[in-house]
Amino acid sequence: MRSLEGPVLPVRARAAPLGHTAGMAAPPTSADYAAVRQRSVELVAPLSPEDASAQSMPDASPAKWHLAHTTWFFETFVLEPHEAGFAPFHPAFRVLFNSYYNGVGAKHPRPQRGLLTRPSLAEVLAYRAHVDGRVQRLLAQRADDAKLHALVELGLHHEQQHQELLVTDIKHLLSCNPLFPAYHALQPGAGSSPAQPLAWHESDGGVVEIGHTGEGSFAFDNELPRHRVYVQPHALASRLVSNGEYAAFIADGGYRNPVLWLAEGWDWRSAQGLTQPIYWHREGEGGAWHEFTLAGLVPLASALPAVHLSYYEAEAYARWAGARLPTEAEWECAAARQPAQGHLVDGPGAPLHPGAAEGPGLVQMFGDAWQWTQSSYAPYPGFRTAEGAVGEYNGKFMVNQYVLRGGSCATPAGHTRATYRNFFPATARWQFAGVRLARDV
Amino acid sequence: MRSLEGPVLPVRARAAPLGHTAGMAAPPTSADYAAVRQRSVELVAPLSPEDASAQSMPDASPAKWHLAHTTWFFETFVLEPHEAGFAPFHPAFRVLFNSYYNGVGAKHPRPQRGLLTRPSLAEVLAYRAHVDGRVQRLLAQRADDAKLHALVELGLHHEQQHQELLVTDIKHLLSCNPLFPAYHALQPGAGSSPAQPLAWHESDGGVVEIGHTGEGSFAFDNELPRHRVYVQPHALASRLVSNGEYAAFIADGGYRNPVLWLAEGWDWRSAQGLTQPIYWHREGEGGAWHEFTLAGLVPLASALPAVHLSYYEAEAYARWAGARLPTEAEWECAAARQPAQGHLVDGPGAPLHPGAAEGPGLVQMFGDAWQWTQSSYAPYPGFRTAEGAVGEYNGKFMVNQYVLRGGSCATPAGHTRATYRNFFPATARWQFAGVRLARDV
Amino acid sequence: MRSLEGPVLPVRARAAPLGHTAGMAAPPTSADYAAVRQRSVELVAPLSPEDASAQSMPDASPAKWHLAHTTWFFETFVLEPHEAGFAPFHPAFRVLFNSYYNGVGAKHPRPQRGLLTRPSLAEVLAYRAHVDGRVQRLLAQRADDAKLHALVELGLHHEQQHQELLVTDIKHLLSCNPLFPAYHALQPGAGSSPAQPLAWHESDGGVVEIGHTGEGSFAFDNELPRHRVYVQPHALASRLVSNGEYAAFIADGGYRNPVLWLAEGWDWRSAQGLTQPIYWHREGEGGAWHEFTLAGLVPLASALPAVHLSYYEAEAYARWAGARLPTEAEWECAAARQPAQGHLVDGPGAPLHPGAAEGPGLVQMFGDAWQWTQSSYAPYPGFRTAEGAVGEYNGKFMVNQYVLRGGSCATPAGHTRATYRNFFPATARWQFAGVRLARDV
Amino acid sequence: MRSLEGPVLPVRARAAPLGHTAGMAAPPTSADYAAVRQRSVELVAPLSPEDASAQSMPDASPAKWHLAHTTWFFETFVLEPHEAGFAPFHPAFRVLFNSYYNGVGAKHPRPQRGLLTRPSLAEVLAYRAHVDGRVQRLLAQRADDAKLHALVELGLHHEQQHQELLVTDIKHLLSCNPLFPAYHALQPGAGSSPAQPLAWHESDGGVVEIGHTGEGSFAFDNELPRHRVYVQPHALASRLVSNGEYAAFIADGGYRNPVLWLAEGWDWRSAQGLTQPIYWHREGEGGAWHEFTLAGLVPLASALPAVHLSYYEAEAYARWAGARLPTEAEWECAAARQPAQGHLVDGPGAPLHPGAAEGPGLVQMFGDAWQWTQSSYAPYPGFRTAEGAVGEYNGKFMVNQYVLRGGSCATPAGHTRATYRNFFPATARWQFAGVRLARDV
Repeated sequence: MRSLEGPVLPVRARAAPLGHTAGMAAPPTSADYAAVRQRSVELVAPLSPEDASAQSMPDASPAKWHLAHTTWFFETFVLEPHEAGFAPFHPAFRVLFNSYYNGVGAKHPRPQRGLLTRPSLAEVLAYRAHVDGRVQRLLAQRADDAKLHALVELGLHHEQQHQELLVTDIKHLLSCNPLFPAYHALQPGAGSSPAQPLAWHESDGGVVEIGHTGEGSFAFDNELPRHRVYVQPHALASRLVSNGEYAAFIADGGYRNPVLWLAEGWDWRSAQGLTQPIYWHREGEGGAWHEFTLAGLVPLASALPAVHLSYYEAEAYARWAGARLPTEAEWECAAARQPAQGHLVDGPGAPLHPGAAEGPGLVQMFGDAWQWTQSSYAPYPGFRTAEGAVGEYNGKFMVNQYVLRGGSCATPAGHTRATYRNFFPATARWQFAGVRLARDV
Repeated sequence: MRSLEGPVLPVRARAAPLGHTAGMAAPPTSADYAAVRQRSVELVAPLSPEDASAQSMPDASPAKWHLAHTTWFFETFVLEPHEAGFAPFHPAFRVLFNSYYNGVGAKHPRPQRGLLTRPSLAEVLAYRAHVDGRVQRLLAQRADDAKLHALVELGLHHEQQHQELLVTDIKHLLSCNPLFPAYHALQPGAGSSPAQPLAWHESDGGVVEIGHTGEGSFAFDNELPRHRVYVQPHALASRLVSNGEYAAFIADGGYRNPVLWLAEGWDWRSAQGLTQPIYWHREGEGGAWHEFTLAGLVPLASALPAVHLSYYEAEAYARWAGARLPTEAEWECAAARQPAQGHLVDGPGAPLHPGAAEGPGLVQMFGDAWQWTQSSYAPYPGFRTAEGAVGEYNGKFMVNQYVLRGGSCATPAGHTRATYRNFFPATARWQFAGVRLARDV
Repeated sequence: MRSLEGPVLPVRARAAPLGHTAGMAAPPTSADYAAVRQRSVELVAPLSPEDASAQSMPDASPAKWHLAHTTWFFETFVLEPHEAGFAPFHPAFRVLFNSYYNGVGAKHPRPQRGLLTRPSLAEVLAYRAHVDGRVQRLLAQRADDAKLHALVELGLHHEQQHQELLVTDIKHLLSCNPLFPAYHALQPGAGSSPAQPLAWHESDGGVVEIGHTGEGSFAFDNELPRHRVYVQPHALASRLVSNGEYAAFIADGGYRNPVLWLAEGWDWRSAQGLTQPIYWHREGEGGAWHEFTLAGLVPLASALPAVHLSYYEAEAYARWAGARLPTEAEWECAAARQPAQGHLVDGPGAPLHPGAAEGPGLVQMFGDAWQWTQSSYAPYPGFRTAEGAVGEYNGKFMVNQYVLRGGSCATPAGHTRATYRNFFPATARWQFAGVRLARDV
Repeated sequence: MRSLEGPVLPVRARAAPLGHTAGMAAPPTSADYAAVRQRSVELVAPLSPEDASAQSMPDASPAKWHLAHTTWFFETFVLEPHEAGFAPFHPAFRVLFNSYYNGVGAKHPRPQRGLLTRPSLAEVLAYRAHVDGRVQRLLAQRADDAKLHALVELGLHHEQQHQELLVTDIKHLLSCNPLFPAYHALQPGAGSSPAQPLAWHESDGGVVEIGHTGEGSFAFDNELPRHRVYVQPHALASRLVSNGEYAAFIADGGYRNPVLWLAEGWDWRSAQGLTQPIYWHREGEGGAWHEFTLAGLVPLASALPAVHLSYYEAEAYARWAGARLPTEAEWECAAARQPAQGHLVDGPGAPLHPGAAEGPGLVQMFGDAWQWTQSSYAPYPGFRTAEGAVGEYNGKFMVNQYVLRGGSCATPAGHTRATYRNFFPATARWQFAGVRLARDV
């Protein structure tokens, strides 16, 4: 990625759209491009045209829309400024598949994406193939154009972000159907045995550096610049909170005791009458817990991480457990000492569900579940947004959201790292978000 | 229909679900059944699976849901009580495709019908074929069972009601797409010439009888019993209000003058910022009017009836025109003197758009557009709901709705008559509803 | 009132603002004016300035606002057009105390009337005294001006309507205070004995005349013109439904059974979680019923009429009781045969709570409680609104409201009659509205 | 305040309710108590009973409620646990005047505080006098009871917080009245000359300490513990943003350009159609700006600080100005070098409006206006909530709020300091909140 530095495109301009990320170590090749693009299509393969077109809530988008929007991104930011005699595939797509870029112009209203029954899935796949051909041609013609490569790389990271959202949006859609239909047949394992014991890993604190250097690999603008922070002495839990532990919180009245909750969280819980995580079900008051997964409804496995928790739920659980959520600096310092590996998605066949904690040390740092931090999503000291529409990506969301770290079972391998900052509002429940506890020492 | 009378099933019990109706003159034959059922499938033929699965607003339902619900109706009310060893096609369908029958049990939430991406359209068509086979077998076995025939007949009228809703729901869905996609290629005609002159037809009034006798042909319970009312002297307009006339109302500030509107109508208009009928568009402030039709966006034809008006809009127009809406008794007395014929739907190939007024006398009484009356939807004197779930059909909707008469360009031929009472809330805009003026003399 | 007829002011122009009414038999004298105006001030006497300034819901107004608005009415419609060199008491009051007359200009937003802490109650009383002096002077100067007298009379009927609203609005406000403060010390009587037995009074029906002739006494425009209707044979209950009977409906699961309710009523009930009338309370599940009255919380008296019922509750009760609500024509025919007397308010000292049914025949027709009819509030045949702002009074509310008849324990004596049409939406609970049953015979 | 330390009541337990604060240097004397309590009553003196009882929005409370709630605080937390044979003044007040302490029990719904027309203002003043007598008696009896003194001190700081809220709530209420009534006659000065030039004060950054030591003076729990943070090099503006500067932002299209706003802020602005600060008005499109103040509507003074800004507006302004909001650590480091003095309130006669910047150096740090920081309101490292109801004070609000520093023209003198952390949601407009710019160096 060295070619991206220098005067052509300042580090800070390599911003990206959704606050989710990726990490290839060299300019994307034609094969990289084809592989990432192909993966999106594979994710949609198990879906019917109806599945791919429906929108279950304003926060989610139809799978078909993800396929089209990621293509729009390449068409708008790669082809339009670089291709001689550029003409759009379809003039209306500029509006239909713009997500939130005011700089690009009008946008189709987000809550009505599910009403775009046309273009059809087949037409969107044709749109993809068409744009892919033109991007590949451009890459071949301009092998030395670093700025073009940077935009293509950005587009691929952007696409990987949408791959994760595509999975979580599909899961939410299917969960709304009383038939509890399965996306695939890969059931999570682990049975009913409890998780391995939880241990605490202490750290002395002091002045540390966090954030990305902007060199050697891709990063989003919100990871920049690398800077110093002062970290207090603390300890991190060795693994994520398990389903079994979270069930004990519920059994202890966790959803009925306002003292455990942030005031705003309690109001939210009360207004919606919540008594359990979004995908947990049981028959009747005393029935056994089940969990809706992409393989359908299955008995809840105690050893697996509790996921799909909102910030409010995560925070209440931590208080109940006599602990707290980590700061993002605490998390990053620990994560920086290990490779970004785990139950990340590495091609087709992934269960798309977190696995149980195994082995010594700090485990489940990457893959499995995004980990809520207590850190509000804010600009790093010296953060600067890029010029133009690209500058609308990360910076304008830096209010009333909280940072999550690590990556989940739906995150593509290579698309996370120690410095990666994901973010969601405190109410978000449909992501693979879990809890790693921290405490003062 | 004589066989339906008598002790087996009292006239009043032949209630039907949606307050819309039909009128075959003899017990339905196997061919009748097949024809009506086939027509629903034909209506969905131009749709993609995505089109057929989406729901554009809580008041509308996906086309697929209409196909399944009408089948559920036969399964629940015909097969279940009459078929030996009855077993449902799929146990969950009882809940998924129940519309509002509390007596039948739980219901899938209405605003979430568009999230039922499964069962697929193909599965729903298989469901239809399966149930059709069983109903036909039952009809063949029980040729003399008047009660069974009455329920089948009711189911077919019910299906025809849903055929009209299916058309208006599809139109609304497609209208939400900025591409303005067409359902079919049959454009409405009529060009830019004005409608034929409007004449007034006077009536002396006095004691008259309205309502259905309950004999000789099918009727819904809300048309019963036939009873006397006193009608004042009045005059009815010879035809429906035209697009050209309605455009003059707009040009005269009709949507900006509160004095023309019912107070509640004005608040509704203001809260939504309405300035024109739901499907009217123009480019910029002074551009020419266009209308979204099932053939896409076309220039507004002056001579055609103004349709898709709410009660509030209809009432404001009438006040502006120095007239009023008719009562349902006034309308029915006039309609009873002519056959229920017009631009109703008689098989495939219908334009599904109203035609221009032609010829002498009171025209456009049937077909073209439902006509708002000033009559609140209320029980006729002596009205009584049927026992059981069937009794939930019409009676429980008799509040805060207004009666429409006549039938529209989306109403199946045979499925309307002088006594037919359609009804919608004052805010409903997505039906083919227009205005026939009345005035005191 | 004869002087009002003829060319100066057509009968139909004597419209009035709230669809509530009054009936003095001759042009108002100076003493009439003083008496009605004084009565409003007396009603506010038991209130603190805070009580008089608060607004408990958008449908209700502060007592102080009622005092000011009724004065504004005289200032705007009597003084402004008739007084030489008219100047307003305060220019801003024209907006502050306009209720809904678009013809008069801007209006202070209705839900924010409680924020008008200034002018103070004392200033509003000074405003009243000032305007009263000018009106009396004008009346003395123009003793022969029939049009002026008609407007003053209209203003007094308008004032009496507001006197009733003032009482019901105060009751609602005090009911929102957990201290259940009393407005006065006059407790309703009647104890725990049941109401007298309910009898049925039959009527043959046929062509009858209803509505006001427009001669001999005051009437609102919505009572005009007198016209023929055809009434079916029916029976009316001899008295209002009692608290004891309504408690039996609750005990029988009346608020838990959707089959008893209109669909829209059931949705309304469910959304708000209603289980009883608005002012009924009991401690715990099995505690004895109490009722909030203007004398505070008291044990529920079985013999007294059930009041403060919405149309939905009234209609559900009637269905449970195997009966129905009367039409307004049925009610008026019966009422026309007796004087408009009962527990109406005749000066200070009124308990402002309905009394028990006593005596033979149809009782509780006037006073005690407004009686819901099944009749939607609609224009009588030939109804015409007046020119100018006065025309906004009744006509523009003729949609989605239901007619109530009779007058209540908060209606001033003289301010009701057989032809009087009160109206409220089906959800209104804070009026003294009860149920008289009807049935077909 | 030393006596509060040690085993009797840990520093961290001296939490206080509203996240606003105070700073007396020794245990409160009887005179301190009387003075603070008297000040609240003085603030209400210019109000009518109606003014004191109304609630203009859910976020605000009636003045009468503030008077009662602060008394309830002493009754509940001082008298009840310490007074022998304690009996409440009125049993219902425990619920009526509880703000949000779940540990104390039920609460009257916050949006309905304005409906509590009773107890009257006079009764609330009697309640105050009664409780004051008992507290003074207790203080005299238990001169050595450090824990009691700590609670009384907490109660006084709590009272001072409510004094500021009382002022801002009254201002909001009066602003809702189209008469723009004045609270007092003290008009802000400054005329139309611009503010003094803005200068930048640089700081090197590095590891610094912020937070309160918990010794030597009062502090709220959210200011504890003192801890290290790493601060980057930066510069702070010498004064607050002025009205003149903010008017230039508006004139430059500040409220019409989405690129200047946080995405959530833009949505908020658009949904409400905001085009200027909450108390700014002008007649027509091009009229001169006026500002609603506690002295009524006055011409906008260019040199005075822009106040009543939301976080969204503050942040958009900073972006437009090419700067950013400071972090709370940056602000605190600068503030720690000067005394907490300025246009704070020091007894009756205060204008309750910010003054113009004067003099060299960093000015307007204390008094004038609270200064939004970009810091989300979060627990300091090592923060711990107290046991019992007192623990509900600050901690449970630590989500989706932003820290403000400094104190305003409505903050009592002595009730702020460099470590004080005020906090409000990003939408809050009715506080005296302004902007001090910062930038990276």
